[in-house]
Amino acid sequence: MKLAIDAMSGDLGSSIVVEACRSFLEKNKTDELYVVGKIEELEALKEYQQVTLIDARETFEMTENILAIRRKKESSLVKAMMLARNNEVDGVLSCGNTGAYYACAMLFLKRIKGIDKSCLMATIPTLNDKGVCMLDVGANAENTAEQLVQFAIMGNVYAKNVRHIQKPKVALLNIGSEDHKGDEIHKETYQSLKELQQIDFVGNIEGKEILKGDVDVIVTDGFTGNVTLKTIEGVALSMMSALKDGFMSSTRTKLGAVMSKPVLKNLKNKFDPAGVGGALMMGFVKPVVKAHGASDAKAFESAMNLAFNMIETNVVDKMKVGLNESGIR
Amino acid sequence: MKLAIDAMSGDLGSSIVVEACRSFLEKNKTDELYVVGKIEELEALKEYQQVTLIDARETFEMTENILAIRRKKESSLVKAMMLARNNEVDGVLSCGNTGAYYACAMLFLKRIKGIDKSCLMATIPTLNDKGVCMLDVGANAENTAEQLVQFAIMGNVYAKNVRHIQKPKVALLNIGSEDHKGDEIHKETYQSLKELQQIDFVGNIEGKEILKGDVDVIVTDGFTGNVTLKTIEGVALSMMSALKDGFMSSTRTKLGAVMSKPVLKNLKNKFDPAGVGGALMMGFVKPVVKAHGASDAKAFESAMNLAFNMIETNVVDKMKVGLNESGIR
Repeated sequence: MKLAIDAMSGDLGSSIVVEACRSFLEKNKTDELYVVGKIEELEALKEYQQVTLIDARETFEMTENILAIRRKKESSLVKAMMLARNNEVDGVLSCGNTGAYYACAMLFLKRIKGIDKSCLMATIPTLNDKGVCMLDVGANAENTAEQLVQFAIMGNVYAKNVRHIQKPKVALLNIGSEDHKGDEIHKETYQSLKELQQIDFVGNIEGKEILKGDVDVIVTDGFTGNVTLKTIEGVALSMMSALKDGFMSSTRTKLGAVMSKPVLKNLKNKFDPAGVGGALMMGFVKPVVKAHGASDAKAFESAMNLAFNMIETNVVDKMKVGLNESGIR
Repeated sequence: MKLAIDAMSGDLGSSIVVEACRSFLEKNKTDELYVVGKIEELEALKEYQQVTLIDARETFEMTENILAIRRKKESSLVKAMMLARNNEVDGVLSCGNTGAYYACAMLFLKRIKGIDKSCLMATIPTLNDKGVCMLDVGANAENTAEQLVQFAIMGNVYAKNVRHIQKPKVALLNIGSEDHKGDEIHKETYQSLKELQQIDFVGNIEGKEILKGDVDVIVTDGFTGNVTLKTIEGVALSMMSALKDGFMSSTRTKLGAVMSKPVLKNLKNKFDPAGVGGALMMGFVKPVVKAHGASDAKAFESAMNLAFNMIETNVVDKMKVGLNESGIR
């Protein structure tokens, strides 16, 4: 299996990518890595037979307008994506700007037949540590009921094959648990999901239930999903910040903070949005994985493993089967 | 000024309402209270000249279908609302089921001229303790751009007059800060709000910024607002629960919890959804205030003061002026 890796787009530069690749290659002697970046920074990977280095002189900055990606043909991001487009690799990995990366996939990769709109999926940490996949978290500003059903099929295939959940519980994010809740699109989606035999549709889920971890896949339109994901991040950060300020307020509480260190560290690990580890671009003919911009070598290596996991388990083909069975295409 | 009070619908029964009324009447010698409930439970209020007691034998249970309110003519909730409808009072207060209460207002009260859709407004606690008003948080499953503009006008009048913020910062909840973000409705709303001279429109706000408290009024459609409000509640509760579990995990952390008690208590007070204290039904010709279902006497008394504050500052008339100036009606 072959993975294209954009080595230049993360906050910490190419060194963490080099480190991650070396660690990966210690354990894996068959898969191939196509590493794209400034070749002089990737010297240390030359010795590996499994590595192909591709020089790219341009980088795409976090601050650039994402549409500028069209003109960045020499960037590591576009060059990595072109490898996938030309079938030289089976998947793509980058920790670059989500918007630019997604725009780049939209420009150069085909969508799976039967998928009207590609989307973004995030795995959100939950209280019970199982995590829940939510899609779309912001690729689209609005979606139809048909598109939401397609998201459900993709999320279900992913949870089953990549997360090894035998019978993933799929829920629709809505404003109440009853089937008549929501606008017309959500009512229609509810009915379609209820009839879709290939998924275990457990009904509507409300915002207050998301972090409980009782369901495995949450289907939502890109507008609601984006506001919800960012709200989760914002509340978690605000509470951590309020905790920190509180602990600094007196000698007693400073001592308390020392005693409570394991609790606070655990809470931070549990809910830190940076721990979510990026997102997946769903609906393209090849796996497109986004590692978190602030990834260190360890986080980047797990993103590599995730990408290979998606390639190995043929999720894209299984999504096609799911779409076929649903009668959508 | 006259306020109708539903004494029966809270979780803690009529006793907290009686206690709140007595405390209120100690301080206030002019305003009149129309207290609706089982008259034998309200005996203690008989001695006050400012109180009119109205007997109501039925109550509306939290578990009942909200549409059953149509048939509950003898309930304290409907009887209190009818006093407002018949112009015998200037406002209504209840801590009953939000859905039933809202349905009841829709059935029996007129909307302000120029308001297409009434809505629900909540005041959300923020990191800087200022709080932020968000509307609509769930009365409508979908809204038009015109309706969102009407919500902005109402929220602005409320923040200015009742919360005494001279120049409230009004923002639109959206999926990005730039003006081209969102679906057609949000793009159109953005442009209309930008042109609306009576408000200080500060642009789009993302989910992660809500709790920072940098803005005073957040305008959103009922679907997004409901999911967002419930997500805030859910994340806050989940984090408090994870903290609690963490502190219970070892002797060290149990000791840490004792040392950290003021911090934890403060955090709970700051973000406890129960502390939000209910919601306002906006867009009706009289103030309709909902106290939290679990209100104690103190919380209920502050809801009484809020209701009188809204009556005294003539927010409804000022909303009419705002709508007139906007050229909407």
